[in-house]
Amino acid sequence: MEIARLGEQPLIQRLAATLSASLGPHADVVVGIGDDAALVRNAGVYQLLKTDQQVEGVHFQREWAPPEDLGWKALTVNVSDIAAMGGAPSAALVSLMLRPDVEVEWVDAFYRGLAEAAKAYGVAIVGGDTSAGPIVAVSVFLTGVPALDGDGRPIPLLRSSARPRDLVAITGSLGGAAAGLRLLQRSGETPGCMAGEGDPLTRAFLRPTARLQEGRLLAEEGVRAAIDVSDGLVGDLQRLCLASGVAAEVDASSVPVHPQATNCFSAEETLSLALTGGEDYELLFAAPSEAVERVRARVKVPVTVIGRIVEGTPGAVRVLDGRGSEVRLDGPGWRHF
Amino acid sequence: MEIARLGEQPLIQRLAATLSASLGPHADVVVGIGDDAALVRNAGVYQLLKTDQQVEGVHFQREWAPPEDLGWKALTVNVSDIAAMGGAPSAALVSLMLRPDVEVEWVDAFYRGLAEAAKAYGVAIVGGDTSAGPIVAVSVFLTGVPALDGDGRPIPLLRSSARPRDLVAITGSLGGAAAGLRLLQRSGETPGCMAGEGDPLTRAFLRPTARLQEGRLLAEEGVRAAIDVSDGLVGDLQRLCLASGVAAEVDASSVPVHPQATNCFSAEETLSLALTGGEDYELLFAAPSEAVERVRARVKVPVTVIGRIVEGTPGAVRVLDGRGSEVRLDGPGWRHF
Repeated sequence: MEIARLGEQPLIQRLAATLSASLGPHADVVVGIGDDAALVRNAGVYQLLKTDQQVEGVHFQREWAPPEDLGWKALTVNVSDIAAMGGAPSAALVSLMLRPDVEVEWVDAFYRGLAEAAKAYGVAIVGGDTSAGPIVAVSVFLTGVPALDGDGRPIPLLRSSARPRDLVAITGSLGGAAAGLRLLQRSGETPGCMAGEGDPLTRAFLRPTARLQEGRLLAEEGVRAAIDVSDGLVGDLQRLCLASGVAAEVDASSVPVHPQATNCFSAEETLSLALTGGEDYELLFAAPSEAVERVRARVKVPVTVIGRIVEGTPGAVRVLDGRGSEVRLDGPGWRHF
Repeated sequence: MEIARLGEQPLIQRLAATLSASLGPHADVVVGIGDDAALVRNAGVYQLLKTDQQVEGVHFQREWAPPEDLGWKALTVNVSDIAAMGGAPSAALVSLMLRPDVEVEWVDAFYRGLAEAAKAYGVAIVGGDTSAGPIVAVSVFLTGVPALDGDGRPIPLLRSSARPRDLVAITGSLGGAAAGLRLLQRSGETPGCMAGEGDPLTRAFLRPTARLQEGRLLAEEGVRAAIDVSDGLVGDLQRLCLASGVAAEVDASSVPVHPQATNCFSAEETLSLALTGGEDYELLFAAPSEAVERVRARVKVPVTVIGRIVEGTPGAVRVLDGRGSEVRLDGPGWRHF
């Protein structure tokens, strides 16, 4: 069977099974394959480990992705996963595949953007690898430190910690990045909505911000379940629910949509972008209402309750409209293969 | 200017400059860009960090690289760099780009080979990322721990520690992997020399062994300068010399060539493969003669003195024949772009 038919989640389950059968349990692995980042112990010190890639033709096109932005984003998407574990990033390596005809100035600009993000998030870029290839692709590897409790034990935000009666909440707004991607792909379709440097939607897609401080505050305020919205709200909530063995309901009318998106797309399109668009890198979390309130009091960005965790088929997510009817979706979000 | 014209070493110097200008010195980085692996300090614990990639069409062809072997090699080349720092590997992440038409069985076999290597080297594979793309490419990210002295300080093997009057020595033999690659690329040209599972040259290329115990012993026995031979003996020795601000002379007749290579290639070709072929993943090191002797007494694989470090233009490497005349080479080794 071809990978395209199998799909990404079954692929990951399959490779995790291959690896676990071959390797057996490893004493130093606290959280392995299947969460936003891995958590390991090394000489008594806890560490988060993460890798995520940006591939030309899949995640970006060189025609519309300026190299500075690509460098920024390549690191940011990894920092976002460390944030979704409640941790802080430390050091990064950069594995870069380059077409031989790429201009040196392009590479310089890419590294400037990367360095800018590294500075913003407090990351040391300590090495990497370069290779020729038919496209441009970058894998960033990032280490981080988890939040610790008073006894020095890690208190990571996990996909598997959601419980029935938890509220489901989200930082910031959704759909901006997906709207920006649409503008980049078919720029100029809607009057007044053009992709460009000054456009907030374009910027939401090309220059996302990792919710680093917010993730740390979540961990400190007793939240235990979180995931970052990279593939789409519904799809990522499904993953969180599946890992936790629970289901969820989302109130569509509560979902905070990017304010600019409503200017460029219909209400229905905007909601669809917010529910399934992905790449906003907001933090989606589940916690008892008191914890959500404590978070809300401390976090600077808006925190919106959008639904609740319920008992039910693990991984099942229902999106409800104002009358309690289920909203039908084209799909849960981004398909990797 | 295009990357292909610039070349890999100037590219790395350029990106290191961009990054260092933007980031400034980072207190926790002991060894940054420019050695076999980075050495950082995290909460008082020293750690090695490394990434290296295998790209279809550049490092391998799917037609002749069995997926098990590719999985094995993808991890091994990274372990080799940890070995070249005198360290031990800990945890790995795997960033995999797959063509959507790749068969699931291929991916299963790839992960089996990866798991086999992980078991052999004591590595925990704790996560990764998958993406679609036009080719198959894999970046492995590996953490490790450096050897420590009695006071708990790291004693890494560095490219920058070679000194005039050090001997230059190598573990194992050279040229086997490059010979194997030639057989894979034009199989059947020489009678009795066919690429295949049972052929030791093919195996040297597809299933290299990282000199992990040997690297550790080098560090313990007071060796301070080493590099693994990934791009070719001469090229890698040039790098070691450049980083150390020294030059080197190699006695061509002393270079240990892979015994099987001489059966399939002329003496001249075999020497050329050994000097510039690369991918043997042997450890090339420079040390005073007493340290070389101590290493030789403890290491199980052959250790051969092949030359000496001298004063001279930093990075200059002369290869001398039996009469002391300089051997002319087509090039120093593998070109990345």
